[in-house]
Amino acid sequence: MNQAIGVIDSGVGGLTVANELMRQLPRENLIYLGDTLRCPYGPRSKEEIRMFTWEMVDFLLQKEIKMLVIACNTATAFTLTELQSELDIPVIGVIQPGARAAIKFTHNSHVGVVGTEGTIRSNAYTEALQSIKADIHVNALACPLFVPMVEQGIISGTHAEQVVEESLYPMKMNNHIDTLILGCTHYPLIKETIQSIIGDHVTIISSSEETAREASTILEFHNQLNKDNHIPDHKFYSTGELEMFTKIAESIFMKSIDKFHSVTIQKAFI
Amino acid sequence: MNQAIGVIDSGVGGLTVANELMRQLPRENLIYLGDTLRCPYGPRSKEEIRMFTWEMVDFLLQKEIKMLVIACNTATAFTLTELQSELDIPVIGVIQPGARAAIKFTHNSHVGVVGTEGTIRSNAYTEALQSIKADIHVNALACPLFVPMVEQGIISGTHAEQVVEESLYPMKMNNHIDTLILGCTHYPLIKETIQSIIGDHVTIISSSEETAREASTILEFHNQLNKDNHIPDHKFYSTGELEMFTKIAESIFMKSIDKFHSVTIQKAFI
Repeated sequence: MNQAIGVIDSGVGGLTVANELMRQLPRENLIYLGDTLRCPYGPRSKEEIRMFTWEMVDFLLQKEIKMLVIACNTATAFTLTELQSELDIPVIGVIQPGARAAIKFTHNSHVGVVGTEGTIRSNAYTEALQSIKADIHVNALACPLFVPMVEQGIISGTHAEQVVEESLYPMKMNNHIDTLILGCTHYPLIKETIQSIIGDHVTIISSSEETAREASTILEFHNQLNKDNHIPDHKFYSTGELEMFTKIAESIFMKSIDKFHSVTIQKAFI
Repeated sequence: MNQAIGVIDSGVGGLTVANELMRQLPRENLIYLGDTLRCPYGPRSKEEIRMFTWEMVDFLLQKEIKMLVIACNTATAFTLTELQSELDIPVIGVIQPGARAAIKFTHNSHVGVVGTEGTIRSNAYTEALQSIKADIHVNALACPLFVPMVEQGIISGTHAEQVVEESLYPMKMNNHIDTLILGCTHYPLIKETIQSIIGDHVTIISSSEETAREASTILEFHNQLNKDNHIPDHKFYSTGELEMFTKIAESIFMKSIDKFHSVTIQKAFI
């Protein structure tokens, strides 16, 4: 089972999932595709998100991946069920793992979720949480400024703090939550800033870590873990320009990687 | 999918898994069977453990369970692969979830495992850890006194502290670990004592919490979560006398439950 795990995202946020996959599954090969050209997905229509996601999936299926990880909350919200029923390989998204971890961690059943407009509008986290635990209280908040900020490489400093503080204000004002799900894979990059604003009494759940954990569970359950004793081979593709993509990737991975490629996917497979 | 999740254990330890299943999957029905009559399994031969486990499984299959959780590390070590290949329902053990959580939490790749002689002798944790992360260092220690102590209801106080301190001495003397797996489902009952002896710098992984988490993952992945809005119905069976079983169960669940039954399984199905 030395085929790669395929990872798709609207841009660089999914690299936090890729980083956790490399850490928690160090024997596995990855192929990552970020649709940086058309990022962010958050404000887009469901139909557009579906079309873009299928273009990414078609690109990765050509590479014979053994599992697909939708490392984008917005794409998960709108395409997970469809992809799970149409593909022959296991497909996992980022919403259910984060929801499940929140259920494990919360003591008072008051859970906050921050995400893009698309993710919050879809109600996907509330449904994922309540389908498992009916009486959970969900405080969901769209933070549309976070993704564009992170995609510009702004992840700390005064400007980042100000944006996070203003965005989280409505949640902080009505704050019974003891657990906060980062419902967007870009947000782990500003996790420390979010923690400082929301307070230390709140457990922050990174859907990236939790998704990697569940990818491991599902691969093992299907007897698809890579048993080879080799140095894994990772490939990173971006639909847009490579400079910022590479810069952010290397800051997440804390090492230099020479496997970045620019690629055109739109209209290639439709 | 309102069929129950079946849970088996050599005695009362698996009740910590049942408790976490009830907490993390509050819509699911459980049927628990503890083989208290023949507990502990730790010092027994592989053949005996296999035979006893199959007797428990046969009992639960009659109840048309939708998933089997082997809530006993020793039984997991010796029967998981066989049960996964022979049963038509998903089967999960307690070893892989604990191993996976340790890989997620450790920063220095030095992981400790405590368990029964049987579990430690089987080398199952080391194999589970290294099959995912080849370069992990595992410090495994058998603590044969813990299960008999817990089965007698001794879970705190001077005697418990003394037994834990003496048992953990070899691990504490050579302690580079930053993560310790409680590789026996009885041990969460003495988690606080273990934490106080091993030190606060060590993250303790309860395989009970982690197994419930993975049961949730696998059920959802197979679209088998119970969607009914009902009060779940749990049943608890013990092969031995009920008094201590009920007492320990109620201290774990922190509530009184009237669904305890004594049952004979041995030779009934062989």
